[in-house]
Amino acid sequence: MRIDIITCLPQLFESPLKHFIFQRAIKQHLLSINIHNLRHYTPYKHDKIDDSLYGGDAGMLLMVEPIANCIRALQKEQNYDEVIYMAPDGEPLTQDLVNKCSLKQNIMVLCGHYKGIDERIRKHFITLEISIGDYVLSGGELPALILADAIVRVIPGVISDASSVLADSFQDGLVAPPAYTRPYNYEGMMVPDVLLSGNHKAIQEWAQQEKVARTKKRRPHLIEKKEVI
Amino acid sequence: MRIDIITCLPQLFESPLKHFIFQRAIKQHLLSINIHNLRHYTPYKHDKIDDSLYGGDAGMLLMVEPIANCIRALQKEQNYDEVIYMAPDGEPLTQDLVNKCSLKQNIMVLCGHYKGIDERIRKHFITLEISIGDYVLSGGELPALILADAIVRVIPGVISDASSVLADSFQDGLVAPPAYTRPYNYEGMMVPDVLLSGNHKAIQEWAQQEKVARTKKRRPHLIEKKEVI
Repeated sequence: MRIDIITCLPQLFESPLKHFIFQRAIKQHLLSINIHNLRHYTPYKHDKIDDSLYGGDAGMLLMVEPIANCIRALQKEQNYDEVIYMAPDGEPLTQDLVNKCSLKQNIMVLCGHYKGIDERIRKHFITLEISIGDYVLSGGELPALILADAIVRVIPGVISDASSVLADSFQDGLVAPPAYTRPYNYEGMMVPDVLLSGNHKAIQEWAQQEKVARTKKRRPHLIEKKEVI
Repeated sequence: MRIDIITCLPQLFESPLKHFIFQRAIKQHLLSINIHNLRHYTPYKHDKIDDSLYGGDAGMLLMVEPIANCIRALQKEQNYDEVIYMAPDGEPLTQDLVNKCSLKQNIMVLCGHYKGIDERIRKHFITLEISIGDYVLSGGELPALILADAIVRVIPGVISDASSVLADSFQDGLVAPPAYTRPYNYEGMMVPDVLLSGNHKAIQEWAQQEKVARTKKRRPHLIEKKEVI
């Protein structure tokens, strides 16, 4: 899979791409991530890429030309399954959407900054807008990394034990059960005995009960969704 | 405000903390962010901080002792308003929760990794669990950065023009209206004329209509919430 990220803050990506799951996927030739500096595509002097909003609202907006030039330059080199814009009001990111995106070959991800991007880019160049949640951030850079992380870890082969990925929260529509590791006794706080019983069936039943109870409490809409299906 | 982040991947934070809104807030003495390496707090040899799960599930879990030692060491130095764990099944992050967190003085943010952390930490040490969305990531590091970014930008003084922050999506329970900047005409795609009219009242009305229409289409639950209130 190939992910091209367009940003006005390319330096932000350095350490996350170097020290994280991305390196593992890149070394296994399962992923290439390319960071494109929006300022290299502007027709304006002094690398100008933003300007004030029409209508008088405060803040700065990324201009049409640098973004359009960059998207077109990349599209000349290869085809893209999606041109994604990380938008606060985009389609909410869910594990289903992550899984769908992981089946694509080439995706482009545009990061907004300041007050976002000119509406004409959203209307005429973007094929999918994704939001990681209903809160406002300084830019689309961290959301692009979130999207890439979520996608990369479900690409087969990136995480060595596939059953670990399948047991994650949300993959079966439920959150994960409580998990424990050594030591058995920490200052009088014990691991539940069933987990040490060696009784696989009893452990499975306990885990399922805990998952359903925890999902009902913390994500009731997931349970309602399951019951409808 | 002081944010202490506990992680097993401290290097990941280098470039985002250097090249982003965080630097602006730190230089203005409105924020200090400290990254704590979990491996420095383990009682085990070879910096071991994780072990396999009781009950036989695949994957590795962060152990109790390194985390408990780190939290206690930090709590000896200062009081914390919250000890937050970034959890896939935590309380969903919303702009309201961001605004609330921005009023705290000292917060600690624990990043899970692998299959997460031992349940005893969640039960006995954590005061608030936050999820940035219903999808699974490789660790809590990027979510901790998301939380910090969202909080920092609403701290008064960090963004110079406060009216820009208040006009953001979600701050008034609606998503932002379409935004345009120069040029007026890009390959035949024009800016709506009302924005050039100089008629402040007409512009305000247009923006409000667009906000409501866009929120109805993209975030209907926000409109329903407003109507109930």
